[in-house]
This record gives sequence, C-alpha cells and structure tokens, in this order.
Amino acid sequence: MATTSTSGTGCPVYLGANVFGDRWTLLILRDMMLHGRKTYGEFLESGEGISTNILASRLRSLEEEGVVWRRQDPQNRRSFHYGLTEKGMDLIPLLLEIIRWTGRHFTMNQARTDLVRRIETDRDGLVAEIRDRALSITAG
Amino acid sequence: MATTSTSGTGCPVYLGANVFGDRWTLLILRDMMLHGRKTYGEFLESGEGISTNILASRLRSLEEEGVVWRRQDPQNRRSFHYGLTEKGMDLIPLLLEIIRWTGRHFTMNQARTDLVRRIETDRDGLVAEIRDRALSITAG
Repeated sequence: MATTSTSGTGCPVYLGANVFGDRWTLLILRDMMLHGRKTYGEFLESGEGISTNILASRLRSLEEEGVVWRRQDPQNRRSFHYGLTEKGMDLIPLLLEIIRWTGRHFTMNQARTDLVRRIETDRDGLVAEIRDRALSITAG
Repeated sequence: MATTSTSGTGCPVYLGANVFGDRWTLLILRDMMLHGRKTYGEFLESGEGISTNILASRLRSLEEEGVVWRRQDPQNRRSFHYGLTEKGMDLIPLLLEIIRWTGRHFTMNQARTDLVRRIETDRDGLVAEIRDRALSITAG
C-alpha cells in the first residue's frame, strides 16, 4: 500500500500537502464523499464555480496519486465515472476534521450544525456511513 | 468566537479550504506546531524553499483569519514573533490527521513512523502536548 517518498525533506505534512493542499482538490473530494457526485459534469455544477481546466487537472492528479479511480461509464462509453480508492476513502476523517474546525469558528446553518454535532459525537459511525456510500458507487 | 460566513455556498469545506487549503500555509502551520518556529527567518529556513513573498502573504492571511498572532520581538523591536491563536491551536488535530494519512500511504523514516504510531494510539495526549508547547511560546 505504501509508496516511496519522493520529497526532499520527506516530511509527511509536505507529502500530504502536495496531494490535497489545494482548495479545489478538497472540494472535489467533498463532492465525492458527501454528495455522491461521480461525473465530470456533476463536479462542474458544485456551486463554487470550478473551471473545466482546473477540474481536469485536479482529477488527473488525484488519479495519479491513487486517491481516485476513473472508469468508463457503462451507459455511455464516451463518459467516465470517478470514485474514491481505499487511499481516498482514508481521507474521510481529514474531511470531517475540516468540517469540525470550520463549524466551531464560523456561523453555520442548522443542517451543517447538525453535521458538526454528529462529527463530535459519532465520528467513527459517520466515517463508516460515508465509506459505505462511496463503496456502493464503486459497485454500481 | 464564530465569525460570519462570507461564502456564497456557506459550505464548511469551502470555508476551511480558503483558510488552509494551500500547501505553503499547511507547512507554516506545521513549523509552528511541530518545530516551535516563530520568526520570519525560521520559517524561511524550513527546507521546502518557500519564497519570501509567499511566506509574507500566507502569514498575513493567517493573521487576518485570526489563526495566527503577530507581536513585536521584545529583544528586537524591528522584528516580529508569530504564534498560534486558540483558533489556530484548534487546527492541531487536522495537522495530525494529515500526518496519520501520509504515514499510512507513504514510506517514512523511523522517527516519523513513531510519530504516526503516537497519533494512532494517543492522539489526545499529543494534541495537549503540542498545545502546551504553543502556549509556552505565547507566554515567552
């Protein structure tokens, strides 16, 4: 599972920051983990206005890093589905930690406040639930 | 403590990604949390080759976001010390989660493997230890 470090300093924060230390990458991972999005068109519609070239480059990097897989859509052979690998699903706790921190330091609406409370009280259960949903996309 | 959301979508991942979804910002936070660095010169020497203008802009953003404080060095009035606010110290679990993930998916040296094991077995204790060290910089 482990790949060889290619960084000069070998610092784990540096290695991690090179994989997901980018706001657009974090938003794509959010769309996969929390919103069940799996096509290029669905990621484009996210609401934050990601551009097509940034989306394409971030998806390519995530695939190269082994965080995301890409497969031909069985219904439309010219289209692709994207989803989380095991390595990608192991980033679910990181995403939840981002949400917990933001929930404490910014004002949130009720649905989001409920999510933050769930993270604080039942993080493991929520990670398992998001994993199961991600796996059902892989199978589907 | 909570500030008003300024984002269009109000998504917590989007809000968080705007604060620390940048590799250089994550490395500056690492230097404060794990290496006790507190001056501009110390951040510049980190090993990953951050440029002076990126360092200055990231420190300014972190200060504006209330994640980092800046104070005149009592020994040298033309120099400044930087440190973590409460909001900044609340990012320690996020940094540890990055290290845990990277430790699982990249090859690490022994010292880093030990750190990852500590995160997996005694995360709360480690968070408290890093907080105490950060607070001693504030007091010093």
